[in-house]
Amino acid sequence: MTATIFGKKHQVLFYETDQTGSVSLSMLVNLFMLASQEQSSQLGLTAQKIHAQGLGWVVTQHLIKLDRLPRLNEQISIKTQAESYNRFFCYRDFWIMDRRNNVLAKMHSVFVLLDQKKRKLTKVLPELVTPYGSNYAAKVEHLPEPLKMGSEQTYPPKEYQVRFMDLDGNQHVNNVHYFDWLLDALPRDFLLAHQLKQINIRYKHEVYYDQIVKSRVLLKPAASQIISLHEISSEAQENCRAECHWEDKKS
Amino acid sequence: MTATIFGKKHQVLFYETDQTGSVSLSMLVNLFMLASQEQSSQLGLTAQKIHAQGLGWVVTQHLIKLDRLPRLNEQISIKTQAESYNRFFCYRDFWIMDRRNNVLAKMHSVFVLLDQKKRKLTKVLPELVTPYGSNYAAKVEHLPEPLKMGSEQTYPPKEYQVRFMDLDGNQHVNNVHYFDWLLDALPRDFLLAHQLKQINIRYKHEVYYDQIVKSRVLLKPAASQIISLHEISSEAQENCRAECHWEDKKS
Repeated sequence: MTATIFGKKHQVLFYETDQTGSVSLSMLVNLFMLASQEQSSQLGLTAQKIHAQGLGWVVTQHLIKLDRLPRLNEQISIKTQAESYNRFFCYRDFWIMDRRNNVLAKMHSVFVLLDQKKRKLTKVLPELVTPYGSNYAAKVEHLPEPLKMGSEQTYPPKEYQVRFMDLDGNQHVNNVHYFDWLLDALPRDFLLAHQLKQINIRYKHEVYYDQIVKSRVLLKPAASQIISLHEISSEAQENCRAECHWEDKKS
Repeated sequence: MTATIFGKKHQVLFYETDQTGSVSLSMLVNLFMLASQEQSSQLGLTAQKIHAQGLGWVVTQHLIKLDRLPRLNEQISIKTQAESYNRFFCYRDFWIMDRRNNVLAKMHSVFVLLDQKKRKLTKVLPELVTPYGSNYAAKVEHLPEPLKMGSEQTYPPKEYQVRFMDLDGNQHVNNVHYFDWLLDALPRDFLLAHQLKQINIRYKHEVYYDQIVKSRVLLKPAASQIISLHEISSEAQENCRAECHWEDKKS
């Protein structure tokens, strides 16, 4: 049996776009998540219900591939499928299509169930995943790890203090806010001149209210693409690591 | 003739809410603006078209009154009316209603036309406002100014460096981002225990990319409400001033 594909139509709102007129990366991930949130609501498995059990869904990794970002006012379809799960991990696919059914962006994500009190991951409860048509598959996926950057860095690191608005129902920084930290470490001229094609982001340690994180970046020009390696850290701890692949907009 | 009332239905999306399950203040203002953006699109007076003329609409003041914030998944109607204009100022009203037509929130805003090159305000062009049914009224509105805070402050100030994502098509920080700076200067416990009822925000000087701003706050307990006075400044310049009225959530 294959897991249910859930779809939602959406028109891109002005505040989902940035100054380039396209959806920002953090909003892209919010749009993906919109489909899974709505699917959960329809199944009566809302975040509030999960939280009432002292649990919360937490993302540990996203793999995103982009053809192009959706544009202001564009009519898109957002699709998601809670593919499979094993003892500790759930795998979910997301994709966005334009009006002609061209896939604009895809995301493959790994979720774990967090015990909100112990702040530890806990075994997946089948009753929280089978309603999505998710299949049990004992095998743990071996997804590529983002390349680790060393102590070298291309630009001065930037620091951010966690804001009230960065937190979600799990009382930690929501996975989407990391994208703004990651990208903001790159200068504006770089962001305007390049198109993101791929990102692999791995969340390692939660970040809490009032903590100060450092965002570091290293640019690695490769043969056909530019690769940026990113690290979000707080004191000596690595909280998040990411690898982005970029294309020159002019090429 | 009265100006056209433009309306839009909207269902509150999960990423428009914060950890309290209600729309955040910055998202409330985004929702208001959604109606005017859509009205502008329908009239063919998009931001892009205005920018192509070297101009941009800029907010100088918002007066917001809140009954309550819209909640996750709530069906709301967003309404707007570009009431009137004079030589330099345009006045626009916004309001949000629930399914039973109760008004949840209102906003009265002042817009000016910015010459994007000179970074100075320029005379309102009638062809940019009459399509909304806006009436010319020579009299300049005298709106209350937010109370100014002195050097006293209740909490340590917080600093923010402007991010790429904070900028809009006018190449300065968008008016909604100030709300996150303002509110984040208040501790989490305060934000969770209080309900915002009113805000008067006055934008004085633009903030640009990479600038560092300081957010300061002073709490003034009043008879029935708590008042917070806010200042956003960069070096010696006051960029923005706001006055918020709060109610204890328990009362």
